[in-house]
Amino acid sequence: MTPAARISRVEITPVAFADPPLLNAVGVHEPFALRAVLQLHTDSGLVGLGETYADETHLEALEAVASDLPGLDAFDTGRIYALVADVLSRRSGAAGDGVAGMITGASVVNRVFSPFEVACLDIQGRTAGRPVVDLLGGRVRDRVPYSAYLFYKWAEHPGADPDEWGEARTPDQLVEQAATMIERYGFGAIKLKGGVLPPDDEIEAIRALHAAFPGVPLRLDPNAAWTPETGIRVAQALEGLVQYLEDPSPGIHGMARVAASAPMPLATNMAVVAFDQIREAVAADAVQVILSDHHFWGGLRRSQGLAAVADTFGIGLSMHSNSHLGISLAAMTHLAAATPNLDYACDTHWPWKTEDVVKPGLTFIDGALEVPAGPGLGVELDPDALGALHEQYLRCGLRARDDTGYIRRFDPGFVRKLGYW
Amino acid sequence: MTPAARISRVEITPVAFADPPLLNAVGVHEPFALRAVLQLHTDSGLVGLGETYADETHLEALEAVASDLPGLDAFDTGRIYALVADVLSRRSGAAGDGVAGMITGASVVNRVFSPFEVACLDIQGRTAGRPVVDLLGGRVRDRVPYSAYLFYKWAEHPGADPDEWGEARTPDQLVEQAATMIERYGFGAIKLKGGVLPPDDEIEAIRALHAAFPGVPLRLDPNAAWTPETGIRVAQALEGLVQYLEDPSPGIHGMARVAASAPMPLATNMAVVAFDQIREAVAADAVQVILSDHHFWGGLRRSQGLAAVADTFGIGLSMHSNSHLGISLAAMTHLAAATPNLDYACDTHWPWKTEDVVKPGLTFIDGALEVPAGPGLGVELDPDALGALHEQYLRCGLRARDDTGYIRRFDPGFVRKLGYW
Repeated sequence: MTPAARISRVEITPVAFADPPLLNAVGVHEPFALRAVLQLHTDSGLVGLGETYADETHLEALEAVASDLPGLDAFDTGRIYALVADVLSRRSGAAGDGVAGMITGASVVNRVFSPFEVACLDIQGRTAGRPVVDLLGGRVRDRVPYSAYLFYKWAEHPGADPDEWGEARTPDQLVEQAATMIERYGFGAIKLKGGVLPPDDEIEAIRALHAAFPGVPLRLDPNAAWTPETGIRVAQALEGLVQYLEDPSPGIHGMARVAASAPMPLATNMAVVAFDQIREAVAADAVQVILSDHHFWGGLRRSQGLAAVADTFGIGLSMHSNSHLGISLAAMTHLAAATPNLDYACDTHWPWKTEDVVKPGLTFIDGALEVPAGPGLGVELDPDALGALHEQYLRCGLRARDDTGYIRRFDPGFVRKLGYW
Repeated sequence: MTPAARISRVEITPVAFADPPLLNAVGVHEPFALRAVLQLHTDSGLVGLGETYADETHLEALEAVASDLPGLDAFDTGRIYALVADVLSRRSGAAGDGVAGMITGASVVNRVFSPFEVACLDIQGRTAGRPVVDLLGGRVRDRVPYSAYLFYKWAEHPGADPDEWGEARTPDQLVEQAATMIERYGFGAIKLKGGVLPPDDEIEAIRALHAAFPGVPLRLDPNAAWTPETGIRVAQALEGLVQYLEDPSPGIHGMARVAASAPMPLATNMAVVAFDQIREAVAADAVQVILSDHHFWGGLRRSQGLAAVADTFGIGLSMHSNSHLGISLAAMTHLAAATPNLDYACDTHWPWKTEDVVKPGLTFIDGALEVPAGPGLGVELDPDALGALHEQYLRCGLRARDDTGYIRRFDPGFVRKLGYW
């Protein structure tokens, strides 16, 4: 009567994919981004897919959990969560966060649990013959809009050939980057990763984007590079130009100070990255939009819990992205399609990569993705591609994301820009 | 590939089942309690069950939604929620609440949506061959503890034969009632519905129960019958005797005043019964425990959202009950089994009824229920029983719950005890 979904075996495969030299407040993306691909096999021959960070300490935590998973049922995610908490409580040291230190304070349990939950939901969907979105309450939208994600960047990684995107240092270069990205993907919103140049330069860039793409919602995210005083000044300068300003200043206190004088909502994926930070943020009215991210909020169902919290407290909801592959993109899309109060187009680093581990790839139309219709996540692993990206992982030698260490090889005096300007 | 779960037909059957003369702050239970049984039929021949209030205005709202449901997919509960909101927005007047006015302010959309969502989850589970708990994240507990639910009561409905429970007016009679209930069901917690006698009499009853059942967690629920001053006095008198005090005084403001001086947590299913009341309650620190109830919090998944909110804001979680049948008991049990932060034994009126519409009945062992293992809710409708209780509904003439109107037939001067003592 009850179809078996017993986990028999777990494979965790670290992979590396080429990543352009994208600049941010703490440095620059290294030549390769690391991800871990999870395959949960069941007795019944199903395979569920998950994707997460691949920093070495995180991989070790994943492996520790994986060894205790066989025998558990893929529908028992509540018990698997308890198992993760138990396994981690017996380990010492923190798991690497895979986000170059820009997101701290996130629950390690939620971060380690997430890819297992996604893989379990993939299995559940395949067992039921239903897409994952149907296990989350069903679609409230058929198409999930994503945002263009602009970066200041170098023309090439030092010593390598120039990449196809070229340098982006000036407002004109950013406008050209945006035009190319919108032409290819059809995005109807634009985010600029800031915190790279002095604030007035980034204000100028936003003005140029606003002039070039009138009516297109804009966002600027300096990753807390500014003092609250600067945050207030920039916020006031950007009045009417951005739909939200993301993480202008560090911490709940800094965000609250800027929010009190900012004419637009403040968004965050730095000041509030875990459930236990929400109370203080609400009390201080520090953030008006939370960027959810199932990779650190504990998977898709816990992200739905975050959505319920946000809705209850009148906080807007958007979605954060790190460099990712197609498994995460599918998971993000299923979650977004089932979330009524997702108020903004989701972030994605998708345009910046050329490699992947799944087939068929999801295709953006008019800046949005249709929810994959097949059972589970609706994407299939390409074993050859997985093997090739794993080889690349072994060859590249990177074992943790370190944007700061990488930029200092070329700019030894580089300073991380937390509350800097 | 994707199994069909298309809704083809909806049956809504009002039923009446015998109910003893249980007293509360607004009157006394009438001879029959009303419930509506929903059957959602699918093209594929499945039937999903739901149960809710049957006040006439509520039935009309259910019927209005039901006529628009055929053709929708039982996995598309997000769209069905939007449909309910749309249908209700086109109707005038409020839906009856079925709780004798003791719960006001609950979202009508959530109340009308709830039984449809439960029936859809029943279908989903049957489609997937899985119990509903598995669609909610899986069991975090195998057995769901319930609480004994004591009432002051008359020996019989006026003009009828005495029921098997007899009169309960004195502490000794309540202790006897508790002893019988615990002997039959094995409950490990005891709730007393108060607000019936002057507060000092109810304090005395709690003291008697504490003496007779040392170590058994106790709760007292006067349904907001007291002023805040009285609430503070009773709370201090009950220090060390109850695990929580439920709704001592009316409203968020009244609860906040009592909470500031109460030595135990205050619980509520009156001051906070909808998501849009939580913000104010949190800001005022008015309640420390919310009694969830999927019948008015919008179904099982939205109740999980409430659990996420409660967990995030450090609010305890318990579960409320009205007079109900086996479909609701199964739904409550699946939800409770999947909810990690359910901190207390659930309320249930179960011992007070002898009739039902499902088979096999769930069986309490040591005060707890095992989660039904069969697909969906794990209970099956008994068509003969449904027919008999529907006939009883037609015969009994009751069309809305009215504890106050009923008691006034015998006690014309009866006053509803909201903030009375």
